[in-house]
Formats: sequence, C-alpha cells, structure tokens
Amino acid sequence: MTAQRPSILVVNGPNLNLLGLREPRIYGHDTLADVEKLARDTADAAGYDLDFFQSNWEGAIIDRLHEGRGVASGVIVNPAGLTSVSIPLLDTLLAVALPVVEVHVSNIHRREEFRHFSYTSTMAEAVIAGCGIAGYRYAVDFLVNHIASKNSAV
Amino acid sequence: MTAQRPSILVVNGPNLNLLGLREPRIYGHDTLADVEKLARDTADAAGYDLDFFQSNWEGAIIDRLHEGRGVASGVIVNPAGLTSVSIPLLDTLLAVALPVVEVHVSNIHRREEFRHFSYTSTMAEAVIAGCGIAGYRYAVDFLVNHIASKNSAV
Amino acid sequence: MTAQRPSILVVNGPNLNLLGLREPRIYGHDTLADVEKLARDTADAAGYDLDFFQSNWEGAIIDRLHEGRGVASGVIVNPAGLTSVSIPLLDTLLAVALPVVEVHVSNIHRREEFRHFSYTSTMAEAVIAGCGIAGYRYAVDFLVNHIASKNSAV
Amino acid sequence: MTAQRPSILVVNGPNLNLLGLREPRIYGHDTLADVEKLARDTADAAGYDLDFFQSNWEGAIIDRLHEGRGVASGVIVNPAGLTSVSIPLLDTLLAVALPVVEVHVSNIHRREEFRHFSYTSTMAEAVIAGCGIAGYRYAVDFLVNHIASKNSAV
Amino acid sequence: MTAQRPSILVVNGPNLNLLGLREPRIYGHDTLADVEKLARDTADAAGYDLDFFQSNWEGAIIDRLHEGRGVASGVIVNPAGLTSVSIPLLDTLLAVALPVVEVHVSNIHRREEFRHFSYTSTMAEAVIAGCGIAGYRYAVDFLVNHIASKNSAV
Amino acid sequence: MTAQRPSILVVNGPNLNLLGLREPRIYGHDTLADVEKLARDTADAAGYDLDFFQSNWEGAIIDRLHEGRGVASGVIVNPAGLTSVSIPLLDTLLAVALPVVEVHVSNIHRREEFRHFSYTSTMAEAVIAGCGIAGYRYAVDFLVNHIASKNSAV
Amino acid sequence: MTAQRPSILVVNGPNLNLLGLREPRIYGHDTLADVEKLARDTADAAGYDLDFFQSNWEGAIIDRLHEGRGVASGVIVNPAGLTSVSIPLLDTLLAVALPVVEVHVSNIHRREEFRHFSYTSTMAEAVIAGCGIAGYRYAVDFLVNHIASKNSAV
Amino acid sequence: MTAQRPSILVVNGPNLNLLGLREPRIYGHDTLADVEKLARDTADAAGYDLDFFQSNWEGAIIDRLHEGRGVASGVIVNPAGLTSVSIPLLDTLLAVALPVVEVHVSNIHRREEFRHFSYTSTMAEAVIAGCGIAGYRYAVDFLVNHIASKNSAV
Amino acid sequence: MTAQRPSILVVNGPNLNLLGLREPRIYGHDTLADVEKLARDTADAAGYDLDFFQSNWEGAIIDRLHEGRGVASGVIVNPAGLTSVSIPLLDTLLAVALPVVEVHVSNIHRREEFRHFSYTSTMAEAVIAGCGIAGYRYAVDFLVNHIASKNSAV
Amino acid sequence: MTAQRPSILVVNGPNLNLLGLREPRIYGHDTLADVEKLARDTADAAGYDLDFFQSNWEGAIIDRLHEGRGVASGVIVNPAGLTSVSIPLLDTLLAVALPVVEVHVSNIHRREEFRHFSYTSTMAEAVIAGCGIAGYRYAVDFLVNHIASKNSAV
Amino acid sequence: MTAQRPSILVVNGPNLNLLGLREPRIYGHDTLADVEKLARDTADAAGYDLDFFQSNWEGAIIDRLHEGRGVASGVIVNPAGLTSVSIPLLDTLLAVALPVVEVHVSNIHRREEFRHFSYTSTMAEAVIAGCGIAGYRYAVDFLVNHIASKNSAV
Amino acid sequence: MTAQRPSILVVNGPNLNLLGLREPRIYGHDTLADVEKLARDTADAAGYDLDFFQSNWEGAIIDRLHEGRGVASGVIVNPAGLTSVSIPLLDTLLAVALPVVEVHVSNIHRREEFRHFSYTSTMAEAVIAGCGIAGYRYAVDFLVNHIASKNSAV
Repeated sequence: MTAQRPSILVVNGPNLNLLGLREPRIYGHDTLADVEKLARDTADAAGYDLDFFQSNWEGAIIDRLHEGRGVASGVIVNPAGLTSVSIPLLDTLLAVALPVVEVHVSNIHRREEFRHFSYTSTMAEAVIAGCGIAGYRYAVDFLVNHIASKNSAV
Repeated sequence: MTAQRPSILVVNGPNLNLLGLREPRIYGHDTLADVEKLARDTADAAGYDLDFFQSNWEGAIIDRLHEGRGVASGVIVNPAGLTSVSIPLLDTLLAVALPVVEVHVSNIHRREEFRHFSYTSTMAEAVIAGCGIAGYRYAVDFLVNHIASKNSAV
Repeated sequence: MTAQRPSILVVNGPNLNLLGLREPRIYGHDTLADVEKLARDTADAAGYDLDFFQSNWEGAIIDRLHEGRGVASGVIVNPAGLTSVSIPLLDTLLAVALPVVEVHVSNIHRREEFRHFSYTSTMAEAVIAGCGIAGYRYAVDFLVNHIASKNSAV
Repeated sequence: MTAQRPSILVVNGPNLNLLGLREPRIYGHDTLADVEKLARDTADAAGYDLDFFQSNWEGAIIDRLHEGRGVASGVIVNPAGLTSVSIPLLDTLLAVALPVVEVHVSNIHRREEFRHFSYTSTMAEAVIAGCGIAGYRYAVDFLVNHIASKNSAV
Repeated sequence: MTAQRPSILVVNGPNLNLLGLREPRIYGHDTLADVEKLARDTADAAGYDLDFFQSNWEGAIIDRLHEGRGVASGVIVNPAGLTSVSIPLLDTLLAVALPVVEVHVSNIHRREEFRHFSYTSTMAEAVIAGCGIAGYRYAVDFLVNHIASKNSAV
Repeated sequence: MTAQRPSILVVNGPNLNLLGLREPRIYGHDTLADVEKLARDTADAAGYDLDFFQSNWEGAIIDRLHEGRGVASGVIVNPAGLTSVSIPLLDTLLAVALPVVEVHVSNIHRREEFRHFSYTSTMAEAVIAGCGIAGYRYAVDFLVNHIASKNSAV
Repeated sequence: MTAQRPSILVVNGPNLNLLGLREPRIYGHDTLADVEKLARDTADAAGYDLDFFQSNWEGAIIDRLHEGRGVASGVIVNPAGLTSVSIPLLDTLLAVALPVVEVHVSNIHRREEFRHFSYTSTMAEAVIAGCGIAGYRYAVDFLVNHIASKNSAV
Repeated sequence: MTAQRPSILVVNGPNLNLLGLREPRIYGHDTLADVEKLARDTADAAGYDLDFFQSNWEGAIIDRLHEGRGVASGVIVNPAGLTSVSIPLLDTLLAVALPVVEVHVSNIHRREEFRHFSYTSTMAEAVIAGCGIAGYRYAVDFLVNHIASKNSAV
Repeated sequence: MTAQRPSILVVNGPNLNLLGLREPRIYGHDTLADVEKLARDTADAAGYDLDFFQSNWEGAIIDRLHEGRGVASGVIVNPAGLTSVSIPLLDTLLAVALPVVEVHVSNIHRREEFRHFSYTSTMAEAVIAGCGIAGYRYAVDFLVNHIASKNSAV
Repeated sequence: MTAQRPSILVVNGPNLNLLGLREPRIYGHDTLADVEKLARDTADAAGYDLDFFQSNWEGAIIDRLHEGRGVASGVIVNPAGLTSVSIPLLDTLLAVALPVVEVHVSNIHRREEFRHFSYTSTMAEAVIAGCGIAGYRYAVDFLVNHIASKNSAV
Repeated sequence: MTAQRPSILVVNGPNLNLLGLREPRIYGHDTLADVEKLARDTADAAGYDLDFFQSNWEGAIIDRLHEGRGVASGVIVNPAGLTSVSIPLLDTLLAVALPVVEVHVSNIHRREEFRHFSYTSTMAEAVIAGCGIAGYRYAVDFLVNHIASKNSAV
Repeated sequence: MTAQRPSILVVNGPNLNLLGLREPRIYGHDTLADVEKLARDTADAAGYDLDFFQSNWEGAIIDRLHEGRGVASGVIVNPAGLTSVSIPLLDTLLAVALPVVEVHVSNIHRREEFRHFSYTSTMAEAVIAGCGIAGYRYAVDFLVNHIASKNSAV
C-alpha cells in the first residue's frame, strides 16, 4: 500500500482563465494550462501532488482554500484583481494557516498605483512578480524547500 | 390558528464558518453553531424567530438579505472581511431598509489599520465589537427592544 | 437566410434588481424591466440585438462579460456598488477589449465621497451619471454610433 | 399673438472656441458651431429655444448665467478648464437655481488626476462625459424631460 | 463577617451629566441617573458593586481611575468628547491595567468624521456604540463574564 | 418690581488671564479687564447683563457653560488654545443650545498651521478673528441683534 | 479750501451682486445696496470716504485694487467664490500693501470643506465671518481705528 | 519686398504691471518696461520680432494666446499668480501647440508651499525661476535655439 | 542677609504620579520621588532651588506655570500624555517666556505613531527622550548652563 | 580560441556583507558567500559568467553598474537599504539600460511601512522577495531565459 | 604679478558622467565635456575661473563643496538623482554659504512625481530646468551678475 | 598586564566637520574637536575608551560601524543630514546590535518639517536634541550607566 503524497494548492483569481488570450503586452502568451503543467511538473519532480484551481468568484476561491485547510502542505496564490481589494481573501489565508507564496505574472509595481498594495503580501512568506509563468515554478520550488526545512526543524 | 412570529435575520460573512477553529487568540473557541444557538435562544425568549445565515460568497449574502426585505423585522450582520471593502453590502443594507446591528467577535480597532473603517457602521443603529459571541446576544436584545419602541411610537 | 445582427451587452451590478423599489429619492421609480425595455428598443431601432444581464454576484458578472468577448460589439456597464471597489471588474473590462460605456442612474458625485472614484471610468469611452434610466438610452445611442465610426474608419 | 417658447441656456468655458481645431486625439474634429447646431436642433424639435454662449472669460460666463436667472428653464454647462478650479462658477450655478446638466466632450476620468474633481458635479442633476458632441444632444434631451416632469409634478 | 464584593468602576466623560436633557435626536431621553440605576442593577444581580462617576474635568476622571487601580475588577468608560482627543485618558487606562469596555450611547460612526477615531478603542476589550443606555447593561454583563473567565483561567 | 434683564455669557479659555502681559506682538497690550469692561459696556448699552468668565481649566469652562444653559441668551467664546483640540468644548456648546459667537484676539490664520482648524467654528453663528479686543464689542453687538431678530421672528 | 478725506476701498467678489436675492437661507435678505449704505454711513461718521465696488470678473477686481494703491487708507474685501482659489487676488492684496479686513456674510466654516481655506486670511489683519452685512460695519470700524493707531504710532 | 520675421509671444500674468514697484525684497527693482526692452533686444538680435503682453485678466491672456496660435514661433509665459491655480491657462497652452518657456522673476520654491506647483511646468519645454528679469533673456535665447533646432530637424 | 537663590520649575503631566508603578517595561522602576530627589540634588549642587510639581489636571499645570512666570529661571517639562494634544500647554510655555527643556522618560519615537508629534518641541530649547529619570538630571544641567550663558551674554 | 561567455552582473547593497551574521530571524543564516556560490553555479550551468559585487557605498555601486553598461547581459540587484531611498540608483539602472531583476532576501512587505516602496521596482522586469537566497537562483534563471527570448526575438 | 581671478564651482551629481550617452530622448546628445567647455567659456569671458566636478559619490560631492567654501564666489549645482533625496547635500550648500544656482538638463516637472521636489530649490537663488546644457551657460551668466551686484552693494 | 578597557563608538555624519564654523545661529561655536574632547573626557572618567569618527560619506560611516560590531559596548550617533533619509544607516545600526544613543546639536523639531522624522529614533535607546555639544556628554553618561545596568542584569 502506497503512502499519500503531500500536496500543494495553487489558487488563481479572476480573469486568469484568459491568461495568454488577453493583453499579451502585459501578460505574455502562455495560457493557464501552461501554468498548470509547469507547476504540476515541478511539484511532481519534488514528490508533491498539485491541486490547481481558478475562479472568477471570490466565494469559490475562499471555499476551495477552506477545503485545503489541514490537507495541503502549502499554498500558491495569484490573487489577480483581488490582490489590492480583498480582505476576505486575506482572512482566508490567515485562517487556513499554511505557508503562502504570492505570484504575479506581471510586475505589478510597473502598473497603475492602485495595483501596488497587496493584502496577501502582508502575510505571505514570499512574493514573486514579473517572472511570467516561471514565477509559479519558482514558487513551487521555494515552497517545497520551505516545507522541508520546517519539517526538519521539528 | 397561531399568529406568525416576527423574525430577525442574522447574516455572517466570509470565513465565519471557521469560527472557533481558526486563530483562537483573536476569535476565541466558540463556534458558529454556538453563535446560532445563543442568538436563537435569545430571540426565542423574546418571541422572535431567527433566520441564521453564513456564506463566503458576497453574492449569496446580498441575495439572502434581499429575501429578508419586507419579511424580517431587523438585521444583525457580521460582515467579517467584507466590513471595510464592500460597498455592495452597504448598498444592500440601505436597500432592505431594516434596522441593522453590526457585530464583530473581536475588537477590530485593536487590529490592523485597514480593518478600522466599516461601511456598515455608517448606517447601522449600533455597533458591538470585541464581546465575543455574547455580542450576538446583545444585538438580538437591542434589536428586539428597538423594534418594540419603533412600533409603540406609531 | 438572414444575417446575424450585431449585439450590445448590458451588465448591471449588485442591487439593481431592486431598482424602482428601493430609495426612490435617489434612484426614482423606474424598474430594471423598464431599463431593459428602453435599452432594447433603442438598440433594436438601430439594428442591434441587446443582451441584458443583472447579478448580485461579481463572479457571475465577470463570467458573463467573458462570454461576450469576441461576440458583442460593445458593453454598457452599471457597476453599482462595485464601481469604486472592484479591480476584478476593471480587469475583466480590459480583458474583453470592447468599447465600454459606464452608466449610473444617480449622479454619484452628489453622494458620499467614497462613491466618487470609479475604476471603470479609467478605461470607459464615456460616462453618463444622473440621467435616470434615460442614461441607458443615451449609452446605446452613443455606442452604436461609436461602433459605426470605428468600422467606417477601417 | 404667439406664446414665448421656453429656453435652455448652454454655456461653454475657456478654449472651447477651438474645439475641433486643437488636440483632435482628445476632442475629435467637431467644432463648436457643430455643437451649437446639434443642440439647437434638438431643443427646437422639443419646442425649446436655445441660448448658446462661449467665453474664455470666467466673468463673462458668470454674467451670462446671471442674465439667464429667472429666464431660462435649464442650463447645460461645459466648464472646460474651469471644471476643477472655479468656485465662483459653482456659486453662480447655485445662485441661478436652475436644473443643470454638466457635459464634457472627453472622458475627464481618463485624463490627468487634477481634472477628475468637478465643482459643478456636486450640484448638477446629471453629468455626461466622453460622448463627444453627442453629449450635448443627450443633455438637451434629458433637460427637456426633466423640466417637463418637474412641471407636471406641480 | 461578610466578604467584600468585587466592584466595577463606571466612568463617564464631559457633558454626560446632561444626558437626556440635550440633543435627544442623537442621545435619546434617558438620563445619567437611569444609566446608573441600570448599570448598578445589572452589576448587583451578578454579585458586583458598582462605582459610578461622571465629570466634565479630565483631571478628575484620571484621578478617579487611579483610585480604582488595584481596587476595581474592571472599568466601563464612556469618554464622550474625550474619545478622540485625550491621550492622557488612554495613558490612564493603560496605567490602571484593568479590563476596559468602551461604551457610546450614540453610534459615533454615523456622526462627524472627527468622532470616528477613539484612543480608548486601541486598548479596550470591547466597544459598544449606539445601543443607547442598554450599552451599559451589555458592558456590565460582558465585563462580569470576562472577569470570571480570566479568574477561572488561573 | 424690575424685570430681569437678559444676559450674555462670555467665556475665555486658557492663558487669556495673561492677555496684554504676554507676547504683545501677537496679542497687543489690552488686558482681560479691558476686554470685560468693553464687553460689559456694550452689553449694558443694549440692555443686557454680561456674565464674564475666564479659566485655564477646561472642566471649569464646561461647568460654567452648563450653568448658562437656559439662563443666558447667547454665548461669546474665545476658546484660545482649546480652539483646535477640544471636542468636549464643542459638545458643550452644542449641548447648551444657545447662539454662539467665536472671537479670537489675533488672526489665527496668519499663525501656525495647527491653529487654523476650529471645532467651535463648525457650529458658531459667527467668527471674528484679528480685531483685537474690539472683536468682543462686535460680538456683543451682533449677538444682541441676532437674539432680537430671532425673538421678533417668533 | 477743504482737505481731502481719507478713504476706504470695499471690494466684493463674484455673485455678490445677487446678495439678498439668492439662497436667503445662507446669505439672508439684505442686498448689496444695503451693504454699501451701511458701510458708507459707518465710514462717513468716522470721517472717511468709501469707495464701493463689486465685480464678477477677477481681472476687474485686481485692476480696481491697483487703482486704490497709494490712494486708499485700507481695504475691505469679500472675495466670495475667489476666497479659496485665487492666488492672483492674494498677490494683488500683497502688492497694494494696505491694511486688509476680510469679510464673509456667512460663516464659511459651517459650509463645504472646500470653502474653509482662504488665501486672503494668510495676510489680512482681521477676518469677520457670519455676521451678515453687519460684518462690513465692524470691518469699517476696525479699519478706521487700526489706521488711526498706525498713524499715531508714527 | 522684405520677408516677415518670425516672432515670439511673451505673456505676463496678473500684477506683473506692478513689477519693480511692489515688494522689491522678492521681485527686485526692475519694471515690466525693463523686461520688455530686455526681451525685445534679445529677440531682435536673433532676428525675431517680439509680441509683449500683460494682463490682470485671465480671459484676456487666453484670447491673446489664441491669437498667437499659428502666428508666433514660440511662447514665453510668466503666469504669476495663475501659475498654481489656472487649468484654463494650461489648456490654452496645450491648445496653441507652440514651444513654451515658463519664467518666474523670483524662485517660487523658496516661497509659500502653495506656490510650488505649476500647471504650466507639466508641459513647458523649460522653466527658469529666480533669475530676475534676466530669466526673460535666457528664455528668448533658449527659445530661438530650440526653434532653430526643430526647424533644422525637418 | 542671604541672597535669594534662582530656581528651576519642573512640571510633570498626567499619570506621572504612577511612575515606577505602571508599565515598567516602558517606564522602568524609578518613581517620581526618585525623579524629584535626583533633579533637586542636581539643581542644589549648581546653586539652584527646584520647584517640583505633578498634576493630572491640565488646568493645574497651566496655573502652576503662570505662577513661575517672572519667578523661575527656567522650566523643565514632561508633558506626558499632553505632549501631542495640548495646545493650551504650548501657549502657556510661550506665555511664560522662559527657557524650556522637554523630557520624556521613554523614547517616544519607538512607541505609537500618535506619540511622535510634540507641541512643546516646537519651542523648547532642548528635548531629551529615553534616558529614563537621568533625563531630568541632564535637563537641569543643561538649563543651568544655558541660563548662565544667557546671563553672561548680557 | 574560445568565445567570450555572456555575463550577469549581481549587485548587493549596504549591510549585505553581514548577511547570515545579523538578525537571522529576518534574514536567515545563509551568508553572502553562499549567495555568490549559488548564483554563480546557476549562471555557470546556463553558460553565463557571473560578476558579483557588494558595497556599503552607493557611489561604488553606481560606478560598478556603469562599468557593466554594454558589457553585461543583465543585472540582478538587491538594493537593501537603498531600495526605498535612492533615486541615484534608479537613474543608474535606467542609464545602463539592461534587463534588471530585483531580489530581496526577506519579504519587505511584512516589515516596516517605509520599506514597502521600491524605486527599482518601477523599472525592473521582475521582483522576487522573501525567497531567502534562493531568490538569487530564480533571478539568474529568469534572466537567462529573458535574455534568450529577447535575442531569439531579433 | 597678476591678480587671482575669482572662480565658480560647478558640481554635477550621479550619472551625469553618462550625459549624452544615456536616454537621449530625455537628456539630449550633448556630453558632460560639452557642458564643461560651455560653462568654462562663459565664465572665462566674464573674467572667472571655473572649477568643474562630477561624481557618483555623495561624499565626494560634499567634500568638494567644503573645499570651495571661502574660495569660490558661487556654486552651480546639478544634483541629478540626489535632488529629491539628499538632505546632506542641502546641508552642505547651506554650510558653504555661497550663492547657488540649480540646473537640470531636463524639465523635471514633466517627469515622475517623485522628481518634482528639490531640497536644493529651497535655498538656491535660481533654478533653471529643461534648457539642456544651455542651462549651465545661463547659470554662469546669472551668477556672475549676481556676484557683481552683491559686491557693488557693499 | 592590563585589562582591555571597554569602548564607546561615536559616529558623526555629513558636514559635522564644519561644526562651529557654519551657521552659528543654529549650531553654536563649539567645534567637532571640542565635541571629541568632551566626549572622551566623560568616557575616560567612567573607565571607557572612546572611538571618535566623522565622515561625509555614508559608506564610510557604515563600514566604521561594522568594525565596531562585537567590539564597542555602545554607539553614539549624530546622523546629521542622514537622519531623515538614510535607511542604510538604520539597517547598519540594527545589524551591529549595540545600544544606540542619538544626538543632535540643535533641536531638530524647531527646524524644517523634513528634519523631524528620524529613522534612527525608531530603534535608539535615547534621543537628545538641542543640548549643543553637552548632548554628547549626556549621551556618554547615559550609555555607560545603561551598559552597566544591562551587565548587572545578567
């Protein structure tokens, strides 16, 4: 009988379903399917399952994170348009009490002023912005190492 | 044939389904089921039905409040993470045109600066923060008396 | 066999289902059904179909706009309570890449300070506020002419 | 002996005499003469005279509005560069005590931050921005209906 | 020989001596004597003495709180006009090192902007605003339970 | 038996006991005794008694104003250093519900930025600053006429 | 041969020609002619001529003040809508280098926030607001005494 | 038959007619006639006519700039008191679409805070402040070279 | 007959009577009696009397400072909670016109943001914060030397 | 003869020489030598040389970046304490005109408010914060791919 | 034996060594050597030596200015990236106590908001921005005349 | 063989080499050599060596503080112009992890607004401003006692 592999939950916010289709000058040509494959391959190579989710509905994102509570080993979140406006999402991340990495495909600091503040950044372990979809690969890599170092510290 | 009892609608915002399970240093150990029982018992003793609702979806909360329009006698709302960011919720409370009491389990004024402003507070009759789940009991008590005094004033 | 007529997508935000029923001092007595008929008649007379939508759920509004991407010729949006707080809605409008007219039934600049800023206004072609439901008629009229002038410019 | 027709006063602020000649990327190619003809035709069809005025002198604009006090039935104002800086113009509109519609040819909310605040918007019935010169047609149409509904309400 | 009962100190700030006599639209018709009776009855039923105090003099309020240091089991404070301006009162509450509940008869968040910030709220256990004089009853009730739970925790 | 003459209450805030003695470049050489004589003579000539008070204690000022409630016909207040910082004084003036004129010996708008805001000014009938002690004479004159016009309006 | 009498220049800003005709709830029923008579009578009794001026044109006001330079002994200015927005008027008052008293018929501090700042107040000897047209009488009285005390100081 | 010489339009704002007569500590002793001669001599030596204008009337300044549209080769503007407050002047400079140099006789950055922002500076080629009337000479020199380099670039 | 020794007035604000008893993590364990002894010994060694005062009443502090006017040679003030909120205390220090040293037992710049601004600091000769009660010793030492250097400068 | 390998310039700001030695709760235990080895190995594996530099002197950092202009293929910068305060460093990065990745060992958004703004972020391709020294590995990886995609795009 | 000629010290801040090489759209094509030649020729023609300096090191700039103290007759400074951030440079200019002219090659007011404030401008005699390298010529010319007028005033 | 004496590191920021030579109205006539002698004598009397350093180069100051890490027992820093702008210096002081006293010769709170904030103050034990060079004496005295009490606490 095989042991259950640990998993990472990746949550993507509103409009990321259109990644690669919309505003390529800002977001590039890679699609969300490309993101999922890249993240899953990276996790798999490290011995992790990956739970990949996108929704345009804040409520669905919160429910999905609640389900990951006590189940996943870590969370990667790209809050997209919710980044600067959703305290409910911040509260959810605080409530699920898992290590969080925040990823943005574009460098939000080169865009409109109102995109610069991030509620998630106030509690995330790390923030990666502007690396395109490779940011997800780095996030998985970091999270896997972070979880390992926490476990070895016990 | 028995008369219909008046009712109070209690609406709870995102992440309150995890009450008692998350961050006990801030929110304590009472669960949302404890809240519901306490509020219902208080209302029942005063001759009121209680309609108790929680959702992580802003849209569901708005719809539920719309249903209470012209039906409930008053509203108790704990907007949780929506407190400081949701103008749609404020508009809903203005639209249903019922007396509103705002409850927070923790004292939001001892927490992060961005939690201090509340859209709901600009129109609620009363605001109770930091009394733990007893705040709901006070809210029902206040609302029942408030409704009675309004009716007797007619 | 008849050719497909072009269409305009009209999207209405939270609480607009109560238009005409709530706070008539601010919003008047016309209902959302009145809005739909007025907008549809105006579009029809100009040879356009009209796709009319209202939701209290931000996620539903985003999904509906995504469906209109590459299908509709233009968008009329009354973001209601989402006007000043929803970056996801702004991102959606940027992503669908259609001409947008923003309509408000009331003049939001005579109301509370926090209603004055509009994310949508930073990208809309035009903004019409305070004309009551006639604002939708003007919006359809403007959009039809705007689309025509863009097409003739090709 | 024929009855006097009611009239609408249209007042245009500084630099609008150059409309269509300057910065066409922002303001388009229609001239102020086009504006006047469009507004007059719309008013005429509704049984209204139109009093059309433009000046680069704030004092002349104030004097002209004073003359319209008790004479015109409504005011359409495009304050242009005075929009964000002239309290005297605001005071004049308050003093003449007529229904006011504010029109901007361009969408001022897509331009520099300092153009976003409008003193006139704090008291106007309606604000129309970004519809090009058609905005004047909508303004006349709205004002005529607004005046009619006020009169019928008496 | 009878044991000494524990006590709660209730301190009321400037102008509350006029409660019920002034601005009834904001503060209602109950007087400070009514407040005292209600609070005392609530405390008495719970086995607590009540020490009730009002002054228009900040210095007198500070001295009275100093006297309660090491004597009272908890403090209920309605800082009234001192709420938003008195750091000395905040320092006093910090210095006496007792659990504090802040009460306001009216909902200060529906009033002038300058009344919204409260120094006391930054350290109080709970804040109750807008419940009229019933707020004092809830405050006593909460404080008694809060003290009991602290004692049982030892 | 002689009828009771109406009276005006004049209240002076902290440090005004040193008027004429301190910082003459800002406050001139007239003393508070000069102020009292000037105000009393003006009131007397108009058939009014004058109740003149100064204190460095905010509490004493509040108590004195409370005593004037329902007794005096109007209040002249020079809040001095309390002008920009005392909400308790503002609340007192609101509570006594009498017409108020605010006087400053110097023009506070030519001094430090932190002296420019006045809580009292948000509710006073009139504000007179920089007229030296003559400001009290004007205040009495205005108040007498204001009271007369209110009475004749009944 | 008679000596030339000294004179005071009174300058009134935009819309004050409508004083007494517009918004009587704010400005009362006295007209600008009443103001002129009151000011002239007060000046005449003190041995001063009065030069009274009103314009809706900032340029005309500046020119008129330039003419008074080296001619008048003092200036009374009611900048009306120019109060908070005209640095040119401030510069003019600095340039004419005469003692200035600023008068407002209404108490501008009880009105909209944007009316509270006054450029003139940063250099005027005195500011009188809310005394109705009597403010002009006090201004003349103060100015006459101020000029006399300056002359006697030589 | 002689060719028409190119020309530079120099426009001076309110109160500059008093240059050299007022506040010499700030502005020095040179008069506007000195400015005109210096600028004209500099232009003449470079083969340019000079059109020199001053007005205390914003409207006159705007009209004069409109006349220079398509006629002058460049503009030197000293907006004086209009610098920080006139969006109409900014719009005019944008509308005439000529190269602009902004000159101030004094260094506005050493003066009151409210003089530091300049609307004109957001679009001028160059800004020269504090060089006294020599600033006009530098402005003519710069403008002549700037025009030449633009022409040679064609 | 012995000459009168010069004296220094030391004034301590609200809650300093509890020094050493409250919040030792911030304020340490030295009491106000320790402060008085340390300051008195330092002054005595330098040939100065010391007048030591503490009150929780702002009015009492102001009165005490008034008494020191023309009597003491210098003032040491620890305004405690009044530091950031009392303009009356600032005015008093300006009025008594003596050299002032401001002392804080703790480093107020490491505490809450609202404690950082000090009215007194805008006029004090020196400010000493965070040196514990030794700050009073340094203040006496500085003041004695400062007074001596002023006297020798005469 | 072997071809020259392309190189990446890594620049580290003030105090990073103490990495691993200071404040390990924030910065961890890895040293700058560890950073250099990790970055160099990553670059080497991708066929890139690495030029690694640290200085506590802003001037030295600017000079070093100037030397890399036209030589290196990309820049990784950890501005450390210069992040929020150095416009000269921003100008240098703009002047060298190479792709830039900004790295921070800690998540600066969880630290003091004054560390949140980054001048470099306004022009960097990507920003990586909180990944510890692994952030340098991700930065090299991203930069190498970014350079390759730019080259292939030619 | 020849007399020593007076000298002007020209100091250039970070990155100006790359002038003409970097971002020519903003800074043009002239190099720092061109600047030096132009400034030296202008000074020489006026009988002045020129001491020309550039550094990317703030400390070197400060030392160089210290050396000029009591030696040079005036300073021309282009602080470049230090303009908005270096109080040490401001202090140095205050300490050397020479007349200062501030020069910027580009018009900093048309660039990012954070470049608009200049510490140097708060004390410089004159500020010249956007004139390209000709600004140095004007600065030398102004300084020479300014020094001459100061000397002749003695 | 004699034991090594403990030492205190005194670091002085930019322009302090000119102390006593520049702006004596603000900084007095004592020179940096006087400061050094005073501090050294004070330290010596307490059994401490003194390491005294001044530089106009931020980098040099940081390096010098690094050298003191683990060597000195405490730091006295006068950051001068770096006070309000240098986060690198703040980081250095945090990194060396020694008790810090901040000294300013003048009272920075009586000077320009931009000098009031101090990064160092957010972590220093104590701040002494305005005591002239005696501030260094007090700083040494305080530091010696502070170190002793820390050691005795072990």
